[in-house]
Amino acid sequence: MKPNKQVQNMQPSYIREILAAAKSNNMISLAGGLPDSEHLPIQPLLMEMHKLASIPEVFQYGETIGYQPLIDFLTSKYQLPTATSLMITNGSQQGLDLIARTFIDQGAAVVMEAPSYLGAIQTFGLAQANIQTVEQNNDGPDLNQLEHLFVSAKPKLFYTVPDFHNPTGVCWSLDIRKEVARLCQKHEVVLIEDAPYRELRFTGKTLPMVSTFCQDQSIILRSYSKTTAPGIRLGSVYGPIELIKPMLKVKQAADLHTGQPMQAALLGLLSAPNFGDHLARLQGLYASRFGAISEALVPLIGMGCHLTKVEGGMFVWLSLVNGNPSKIAESALKNQIAVVPSDVFYLKENAAPALRLNYSHSNERELTKAIEKLTQVIALASND
Amino acid sequence: MKPNKQVQNMQPSYIREILAAAKSNNMISLAGGLPDSEHLPIQPLLMEMHKLASIPEVFQYGETIGYQPLIDFLTSKYQLPTATSLMITNGSQQGLDLIARTFIDQGAAVVMEAPSYLGAIQTFGLAQANIQTVEQNNDGPDLNQLEHLFVSAKPKLFYTVPDFHNPTGVCWSLDIRKEVARLCQKHEVVLIEDAPYRELRFTGKTLPMVSTFCQDQSIILRSYSKTTAPGIRLGSVYGPIELIKPMLKVKQAADLHTGQPMQAALLGLLSAPNFGDHLARLQGLYASRFGAISEALVPLIGMGCHLTKVEGGMFVWLSLVNGNPSKIAESALKNQIAVVPSDVFYLKENAAPALRLNYSHSNERELTKAIEKLTQVIALASND
Repeated sequence: MKPNKQVQNMQPSYIREILAAAKSNNMISLAGGLPDSEHLPIQPLLMEMHKLASIPEVFQYGETIGYQPLIDFLTSKYQLPTATSLMITNGSQQGLDLIARTFIDQGAAVVMEAPSYLGAIQTFGLAQANIQTVEQNNDGPDLNQLEHLFVSAKPKLFYTVPDFHNPTGVCWSLDIRKEVARLCQKHEVVLIEDAPYRELRFTGKTLPMVSTFCQDQSIILRSYSKTTAPGIRLGSVYGPIELIKPMLKVKQAADLHTGQPMQAALLGLLSAPNFGDHLARLQGLYASRFGAISEALVPLIGMGCHLTKVEGGMFVWLSLVNGNPSKIAESALKNQIAVVPSDVFYLKENAAPALRLNYSHSNERELTKAIEKLTQVIALASND
Repeated sequence: MKPNKQVQNMQPSYIREILAAAKSNNMISLAGGLPDSEHLPIQPLLMEMHKLASIPEVFQYGETIGYQPLIDFLTSKYQLPTATSLMITNGSQQGLDLIARTFIDQGAAVVMEAPSYLGAIQTFGLAQANIQTVEQNNDGPDLNQLEHLFVSAKPKLFYTVPDFHNPTGVCWSLDIRKEVARLCQKHEVVLIEDAPYRELRFTGKTLPMVSTFCQDQSIILRSYSKTTAPGIRLGSVYGPIELIKPMLKVKQAADLHTGQPMQAALLGLLSAPNFGDHLARLQGLYASRFGAISEALVPLIGMGCHLTKVEGGMFVWLSLVNGNPSKIAESALKNQIAVVPSDVFYLKENAAPALRLNYSHSNERELTKAIEKLTQVIALASND
């Protein structure tokens, strides 16, 4: 039995496959988007799990929308207006998948940035969307291109990661945020704002979410993988009730509902008075690691490579002067360093030559060592 | 923004909606497929969760296929041949959804029994399959009809629940099992064997799974909701490697992987030496409850209603002499009794008039009281 044509056309995730390779001994992986393993809040989560004895109902079937006390907490935390509905999902990836499955008819146009999050390319591809891309500047998408696309392609959705973009680390300016919201409203395009890294800002001022400027036509994805523990696979998706309601029907067919005991444990963790301290520790840790990788990258910058300036998140984007990023990533892997070449994040073959480097998972010493080796690999490739 | 046409056409689950209604005070629900709340293995699960401190890696991102020690345990437990692959899913519902999303092209034919599991009707409907149905006898599907459908519709899949069918409780005879497997092989139809109730047999002899007679072209769905706790949402799906492999790509796009801490806790629970005792207790409990509901139904049988004989599972199927099952279910609900009318389980409008009655969730006293009230409702409807 053969898979259907959309699955046949689908590429498995290079990143998920490299993660398996990156588990081997002596490998330093800057490839994944993993939080630091030493700082996962495991003990607090275990303490919360211990309390589940007093709420046995979480072990029985639950509601499709999620565990109500967690929904209530998040609704208040995010200060959601009354006409908003919030659903708990298996990580924000499932929220994205539910959006694609609910709203995309075969061939419907969707706009994304180029480069863009690989999981979004996969999911909209599987839904057989007609994906159109807009180029990204240092402060957000190219607005002229974006409006042109909104007019010419008449997309239903614009999917984006405005805070510490994956893969580039770009954070949109306030002006771009307001203008994109205005364009979405003017052209009746629903904004899908994916915000997994938003709480990982370690410098600069927090900016309002883009969706706050076009609340009536936005769906927001939240991840708890980057701030708590990815292994529990919990996220949420929210937006106007009339947009979330049909997604609930698809969630029913997809898996009835998300596991409840971990939802209850997550509620305990997020609502604990010291959760802010945990977040501050993570921000400090990643600031220090960003410092280390930036310093280690100085020789490459000297060789003409360009680095995006980031104020948070997990990634930097290293633009290469020349050389083939896939071949550089391959050579790096042979030298026990895993990085992701830029073409993975592009739908078409016009990828700018670059590498995505993660600095959240490895410590300062590992980052320095990895970049030293990478520098040699890139220098060698330049001499080819 | 409007949902796509397949979501617009999708009916929300009557059962999930009635479950919400059934939570009100004084309601006795025979509507859901819920295990008994008092016998969920909560303490053993909590003990297993306590041990997670020693395997912190389950809190980090994991592999799409699932937590390897659980996969190894289940592979051995089910004695799977070497060319088989097993993936962990968010309940068996997700396994079903992944099958539909991976293999169904729009309009591809799928055969199911009539009546059939509502979640399967929803999932294959969402995948835009052309669903064809075969009638069910007391010992399995009508074989003549089935072969006729295999020839005329050339389906890719035959989806079925051979052990204690949902909704009818029917258990296939050994001869039917062998013959269906032969037909699947002859006509190159992949068998989807959904086995959530298989371990809930309380009388009679366990029969081999249908898929053991056509292993090369079967995918099997396993649920841990009925034997452990549904709230943890864990299931598995297995079959030949070449069939599971493309499903992994879809699982990646769907949610990256299933939450790991609960997979590790489930492994501890299932591999504990006393898990068999828990299962035996459940079987004894449901045998007693089946006894109670059967006894309470005697007056209705006297009025000409017919009851399927069951040897396990969670449901009996009460065929009605006359009256509209939806109206009877509605009247019952007004009398604080929730049951599911047969038309919910049929794709077309030729539903045989019947009710699905669950006996696993309510105790003997509640079952007796519920059936007394239901008898009055049905008697009243007959006099209309």
